[in-house]
Amino acid sequence: MSGSSFGKVFKISTFGESHGKAIGVVIDGCPAGLKLDIEKIQKDLDRRRPGQSKITTQRKEGDICHILSGVFEDVTEGTPIGMVIYNEDQKSKDYDHIKDKYRPSHADFTFDVKFGVRDYRGGGRSSARETAARVAAGSVAKQLLATAGIDIHAYVSQVGNIFLEKNYQEVDFDLIESNIVRCPDEETAEKMIQLITQMRKEGDTIGGVLTCVIKGVPVGLGEPVFDKLHADLAKAMMSINATKGFEYGSGFEGTQLKGSEHNDIFYKDEDGQIKTKTNRSGGIQGGISNGMDIYFKVAFKPVATIMKVQESLDVNGDEVEVSGRGRHDPCVLPRAVPIVEAMTALVLADHWLRNRSSKL
Amino acid sequence: MSGSSFGKVFKISTFGESHGKAIGVVIDGCPAGLKLDIEKIQKDLDRRRPGQSKITTQRKEGDICHILSGVFEDVTEGTPIGMVIYNEDQKSKDYDHIKDKYRPSHADFTFDVKFGVRDYRGGGRSSARETAARVAAGSVAKQLLATAGIDIHAYVSQVGNIFLEKNYQEVDFDLIESNIVRCPDEETAEKMIQLITQMRKEGDTIGGVLTCVIKGVPVGLGEPVFDKLHADLAKAMMSINATKGFEYGSGFEGTQLKGSEHNDIFYKDEDGQIKTKTNRSGGIQGGISNGMDIYFKVAFKPVATIMKVQESLDVNGDEVEVSGRGRHDPCVLPRAVPIVEAMTALVLADHWLRNRSSKL
Amino acid sequence: MSGSSFGKVFKISTFGESHGKAIGVVIDGCPAGLKLDIEKIQKDLDRRRPGQSKITTQRKEGDICHILSGVFEDVTEGTPIGMVIYNEDQKSKDYDHIKDKYRPSHADFTFDVKFGVRDYRGGGRSSARETAARVAAGSVAKQLLATAGIDIHAYVSQVGNIFLEKNYQEVDFDLIESNIVRCPDEETAEKMIQLITQMRKEGDTIGGVLTCVIKGVPVGLGEPVFDKLHADLAKAMMSINATKGFEYGSGFEGTQLKGSEHNDIFYKDEDGQIKTKTNRSGGIQGGISNGMDIYFKVAFKPVATIMKVQESLDVNGDEVEVSGRGRHDPCVLPRAVPIVEAMTALVLADHWLRNRSSKL
Amino acid sequence: MSGSSFGKVFKISTFGESHGKAIGVVIDGCPAGLKLDIEKIQKDLDRRRPGQSKITTQRKEGDICHILSGVFEDVTEGTPIGMVIYNEDQKSKDYDHIKDKYRPSHADFTFDVKFGVRDYRGGGRSSARETAARVAAGSVAKQLLATAGIDIHAYVSQVGNIFLEKNYQEVDFDLIESNIVRCPDEETAEKMIQLITQMRKEGDTIGGVLTCVIKGVPVGLGEPVFDKLHADLAKAMMSINATKGFEYGSGFEGTQLKGSEHNDIFYKDEDGQIKTKTNRSGGIQGGISNGMDIYFKVAFKPVATIMKVQESLDVNGDEVEVSGRGRHDPCVLPRAVPIVEAMTALVLADHWLRNRSSKL
Repeated sequence: MSGSSFGKVFKISTFGESHGKAIGVVIDGCPAGLKLDIEKIQKDLDRRRPGQSKITTQRKEGDICHILSGVFEDVTEGTPIGMVIYNEDQKSKDYDHIKDKYRPSHADFTFDVKFGVRDYRGGGRSSARETAARVAAGSVAKQLLATAGIDIHAYVSQVGNIFLEKNYQEVDFDLIESNIVRCPDEETAEKMIQLITQMRKEGDTIGGVLTCVIKGVPVGLGEPVFDKLHADLAKAMMSINATKGFEYGSGFEGTQLKGSEHNDIFYKDEDGQIKTKTNRSGGIQGGISNGMDIYFKVAFKPVATIMKVQESLDVNGDEVEVSGRGRHDPCVLPRAVPIVEAMTALVLADHWLRNRSSKL
Repeated sequence: MSGSSFGKVFKISTFGESHGKAIGVVIDGCPAGLKLDIEKIQKDLDRRRPGQSKITTQRKEGDICHILSGVFEDVTEGTPIGMVIYNEDQKSKDYDHIKDKYRPSHADFTFDVKFGVRDYRGGGRSSARETAARVAAGSVAKQLLATAGIDIHAYVSQVGNIFLEKNYQEVDFDLIESNIVRCPDEETAEKMIQLITQMRKEGDTIGGVLTCVIKGVPVGLGEPVFDKLHADLAKAMMSINATKGFEYGSGFEGTQLKGSEHNDIFYKDEDGQIKTKTNRSGGIQGGISNGMDIYFKVAFKPVATIMKVQESLDVNGDEVEVSGRGRHDPCVLPRAVPIVEAMTALVLADHWLRNRSSKL
Repeated sequence: MSGSSFGKVFKISTFGESHGKAIGVVIDGCPAGLKLDIEKIQKDLDRRRPGQSKITTQRKEGDICHILSGVFEDVTEGTPIGMVIYNEDQKSKDYDHIKDKYRPSHADFTFDVKFGVRDYRGGGRSSARETAARVAAGSVAKQLLATAGIDIHAYVSQVGNIFLEKNYQEVDFDLIESNIVRCPDEETAEKMIQLITQMRKEGDTIGGVLTCVIKGVPVGLGEPVFDKLHADLAKAMMSINATKGFEYGSGFEGTQLKGSEHNDIFYKDEDGQIKTKTNRSGGIQGGISNGMDIYFKVAFKPVATIMKVQESLDVNGDEVEVSGRGRHDPCVLPRAVPIVEAMTALVLADHWLRNRSSKL
Repeated sequence: MSGSSFGKVFKISTFGESHGKAIGVVIDGCPAGLKLDIEKIQKDLDRRRPGQSKITTQRKEGDICHILSGVFEDVTEGTPIGMVIYNEDQKSKDYDHIKDKYRPSHADFTFDVKFGVRDYRGGGRSSARETAARVAAGSVAKQLLATAGIDIHAYVSQVGNIFLEKNYQEVDFDLIESNIVRCPDEETAEKMIQLITQMRKEGDTIGGVLTCVIKGVPVGLGEPVFDKLHADLAKAMMSINATKGFEYGSGFEGTQLKGSEHNDIFYKDEDGQIKTKTNRSGGIQGGISNGMDIYFKVAFKPVATIMKVQESLDVNGDEVEVSGRGRHDPCVLPRAVPIVEAMTALVLADHWLRNRSSKL
C-alpha cells in the first residue's frame, strides 16, 4: 500500500519522477472560498528551485506551476486543486553511467529490491524534485492558514560545524531571505556560505539543521492520542529527503533537566490570555497547541551525491566505481527552507480543519 | 477528526481514560493464522505496569489483558482482535484537588480548550495509562514480526546527565532486563538508579533517552514518499507521552559530517548479501529498509508531575498553587521501554503487510 | 487490508464473533459535549435483540451495552467511546454438526478459503450478531443528529409478496412500533405476520424490503465525487447482512420516465425556503442533500438457515446433508429496522461533521 | 472533508472541472511491474467520449490521455500514475444563460449552498466529464486484473420501457460493441436506438439500466464486515452521476423467494472446484467472492438537461425559465458502459490487493 498521500482533511497526493514528463499534486480538501494569490505559490517554488544561487545546484528548472482545477476566478471551489510542474531541464544522459549501479547512501538499491524496477534517471521518484509539488501545495496551505493568523518561519540554524548562536526569539525573520543561505544573521550566514563553497570545491557536501517557528497558532490543534501535533510535524519533517532527526521545544537537551526546571508555569497576560512564562513545551502540551510559539529543529544529512570517486556495487552485485556527474547541491539546507515551511503548513492546515469537529 | 487510530493495514484503535471503566484496543488487520502466545502479551504489559520496582510509581494496576475477539483456539482469525484492560486501582480522589486547576506542562489546559470538557481524573485520555493498550497491541505485532525473523530491542541509554557510553553494537541485549532501569550496562544502570532515587527523594523528576534497535528487517519496507519507514517511526515515537525528539542513524550528530565521511559503502558479504560497510543510514535508505540494523533514539522530558509546590492558574484564570499527590514516576524511561518496542512493532507490522502490494 | 471500520470523521470499528466472549465497537470521532441518554442506546439494542417476539428467533441475548470510555458524567469527552456487549446465550453446541460443513448461501466456504481458519460457532464474524455493535454506535449517532434536527424512520414495506401499498408520505411513523413486524399499517402488518408464521412452520424463510426516511437534513451533506450521500448510504446498507439491493428516490422505476417527467421543479415555500414540488431526487442532488426528505429502499434476501434438509459439501469437498438447528429468524426484516436506522445515522453523522470543512 | 478519492490500496484521486483547464487522476497503489498497453486506455476513453455516435451528445472532446508519471518504458514503477486529459471543446458560453439559475434536478443548488461558490460552466465538478478520469484509471485497473484472469463486461439491458429479455448467461459479450447503444442483442438494440432518437427529437431524455458481469474472480475477495465486495461495488456504482439504484444476484426480485428456493447448493465440478448449482448469491457470499460469476444491475435516471422550457428559481430565489442549450445526451446509458466497467475494475483491483494481507 503506497504512501504518496499526506493529511486527512487537507489531504495531498503527489506524483511524478525526476525525469518523467511532470511532477504534480492534487489537494483534496481545501475549503471553498479561499482567495488564492497564484504569484505567492510561484514565489515559494522559486525559493526551492535549483540554480537560484552560487551555492545551490546549477540545474535550470523553471518550475512553473500550472493550476488545472479547483480554482475559479482565483477563488477555491472546494473541489480538488490539481497542480502540475513540467520537467524541463532533464539531462537524463547525466545518469546513463549509473543506470546499473547502486550509488552509496541513495535509494537505488532499496527501490530496486522493493519494486523490481527502477527509474535510474535522476533518482526517479526518490529524487528531492518531488518536493516541488509539496511546496506548491504547502503554499496553498499557507494562504489558508494566513486567514487564521498563522504564520510560519523556517531558517538555517546550522551548517556543518557552524552554529547560529541565537535562539529563535532573538532572530529577525525578515533577515532570512537577505542572504543565499537563509540564515537570519549576516555574520553566521557568511561563514556558512564559505563552508558550502569550500565543500563544492572539494566535490564534497555537508549537512546541517533547520529551525522552524510557527506563530499565531490558536489553542486546540492536535488530536490525541496518535495524531499529536508534534507527532504529525515529526512525520512531515522526516518524510523530507535527507532528514535524520526532529526535536521540538526543549528537545534532546531538555532530557537533562529536572521536572522543576522544565515545567512551564501558566500566567495570565495583560489581555487576559493564558500563557506560559517559559516555553520548553514548544507550544504543544499533550499533543495539542497551547497558543505559545511552536518551534522545532530538523536535521539534514550531507547530500549523498559527491563528485569524488566511491566504491560500490552494480545491480549484479559486482564491484564498481561511482562518481557524481551533473549538477548537484553541495548542501541541501538553503533550498530545504521552503520545503520545511510547506510541510509545516500542510500539517497545520490539516489540523486546523480537523479541529472543527472536536466539539458539538 | 479524531486521532486514536494508528496504522493503515495493521491498524489499531485505542480507547479509554485513566480512571474510566477500562482501556482497550481493537486491532483491525492482523492476518489470519498467527499462533498467539497470550502469556507474552501479559509479560509485555507487566514490563510497562506501574509498581514493578522501587524507581517507578507505586500505583498497583494489575493490567490484565482480556482478549474479547479475533482469536479462536489461540490462532488469529483475520478478524478484529478486541482487547480490554480494566482499570482497577483508581484513586480518583487523588485528583479532586486539581479538578479545577491546570497543572503545569500537562494537557489540562489544552484539553479543556479543545474539547470544552475535561476528565480531570488522572489526566483522563491524556494519561500515559493509554499506552498499556498500545503495549498489548504491539505484543501481537511483535509475534507477527517474529514469524519473519524481525526482532526489536529498546533500552535506556541516558537518564539526566548519565549517558551509556556504548553504541548499540557494543550492547548485550540480554542485559536489558537485568536491572530495573533497563540499561544494558551494570555500572551505568547503577548510576541511573541512584539519580532517579535522588529525584524521587527531592520530589522531582528527570528525563532521558531511549535507544531502539531492530534486527532482521528484510529489504523493502517503507513507502515513498510520505510513509518513509523512519517518518512513520518518528510519528510513532512522538505520539508517546512526554517525547521531545527523534533521530535515527547518524542523527543530529551526522549533520556535521561531509558526504564523503557519511556515505555508507556497499559490499557483498560472504553469503552474497548486499550490505553496507558502515551504517550511518540507520538501516533505511530513501525511506526503505536496506537490510541493515535499524536504530534510533527517542528523547523523553522529565515527568511533569512533581511533588513540589508550583504556581499555576485554575479554569477561571485565577492564580493557584499546585502540587502532585498520589503515586507518580520520578522518571518515565524504564517503563517507556516496552512502549517504544510496541510502537516500533506496530510500525514494522504495518509496513511488512503494506509491502505485500508493492509488486505485481 | 481489513474492513471492520466505517466512516471517516465519525468513525467506528466493530469487533467480535458470534460466540466469542463479546462483541463491541469503538467510536472515534464523536464530538465532545453531547449529552448521552444511555437508555436510548439500550432501547435500540432491544429492538434488534433476538427473542423479542414470536416471529423472531427465540435465542435469548440480553445485549446489555457497557460503555467503557469516552463518556464522563453522561457527556461525551471527544475521546473514543468504547462499548462492549458480552455474549451470553451462546449454544455453541448447536453448531457442532456444521463444524466441517459448508452451509448453503452462508459465508462458511468463502471465509474458509479467504482466511484459512473458520470460527464455525454461529457464523463467527459473519454472523449478524455483529450488527448489535452497529446499533449501539448508531444510537449515539442518532443522538448527535437529533441536536441538528435530523430524524430517521425505517419500516418494513414488503415481506415476500406482501407489499405495503402506501408511499412514505402516507405513512404514520408512530405506527412502526405498534406491531411486531414493524410495518406501519395494521392490515398489511397482519398479513406479513401470517406469512412469516407460516414460513416458520414450514421450516422455511422469506425475504423482503425496508423503506427508510430521513427528515430534517440540512442542505449540503454529501461529498463529491465519490462520497456522494447516496453512495455512502448504499454502501452502508449493502454492508448489512443479507442485503441484495438499494435504491433511492425514484429508484429502478424512475428509469422508465422521461427527463421532463422526472425532473423536480424548484419553488420557494411560504418561509422563503427553496424546495422542490416533487421529490424524485430523493432529497439528494449531485450527491448532496437538498433539504427535502431523503428516502430509500433496501432489499433483504430470505435467511439462508432453513430447517429443511439441504445437500451440500464439507471442507473436504465431500457431499453431506445440512439442516438448521437452534433458533433462527424466519424473516430478518423486523429486526433489521434498527440496523438500517443505525447505519443511516452513522452515514449522516459522518457527513454532518465532514461538511464542517467545506467552506472557509 | 472532501470525497474525491476512492479505494484503499489501489487508490485514485480525481480532479478537474468540466470547463477548467484539464481533468485528471492520480493512481496511488498500482503495483510495480505491470506492462501497460496505453492504447487500451485510449480505447476505453473513446468508448466514453462524447460525439461517438448519433445517439450521444455531439460535443467534440478528444479526451487524449497524457500519462505524466509512474510508468517507465511502458511498465508501472510502483509510484503514483498521474494522468491528465485536457479540456478542449469547451463552449463555456453555452452556459452563460444559466449562470445565476438553478437547473432542475441538477447539482447547481446544492453545490451553491454547500460551497458558497459555483462553477456554472458545464456543471463544473458535478459534470459527468469527471468520469473520463475514472475511465482512464479503471483501464489501468482492468489491465492489472487481466493478469489474474479477471474480466469485466457491462452492457445496456434496459432503456425506458425497452427491456433486454435475456439473462446474462444468454448474452454474447462480443456483441456489446456491435451497436451504438451497447446492448448485446440486435433487435432490442434497434428498439432502444429508436426510442433514444425519438427522445432527442422531442428534446427530452430517458433513463435505463446497465448490467455488469465479472468473470474469473478468485474466491476470497471482499473484506468483512463493512467492505463487503458488493457493498463496495454498490458505492462505486452509486458514485457515478445519475445512478438511482443497485442490485446484485437475485436483487429486489429475490426478496419474494423462500430460503429453500433462494439458497445456492454447493457441488464439486469436474475439475474438483467447489461451485454452486444456481447463482442467486451473485458470486458473493458473506461479502466475499465465491468464485462464481459476479453480476449486478445499475439504474440510471433520465438526463436532467432537456431542451424543453422548465420553470425554476435563480440564485436570488426569483422565478425564472430554464431550457437546455448546447449539446447533451438524450440517454446516458451507452456512454455509461465504460464508466461502470471502470468503477468495477477499481473495486476489484483494490480488493485483489487488499486480500494479500488476509493470511499469514
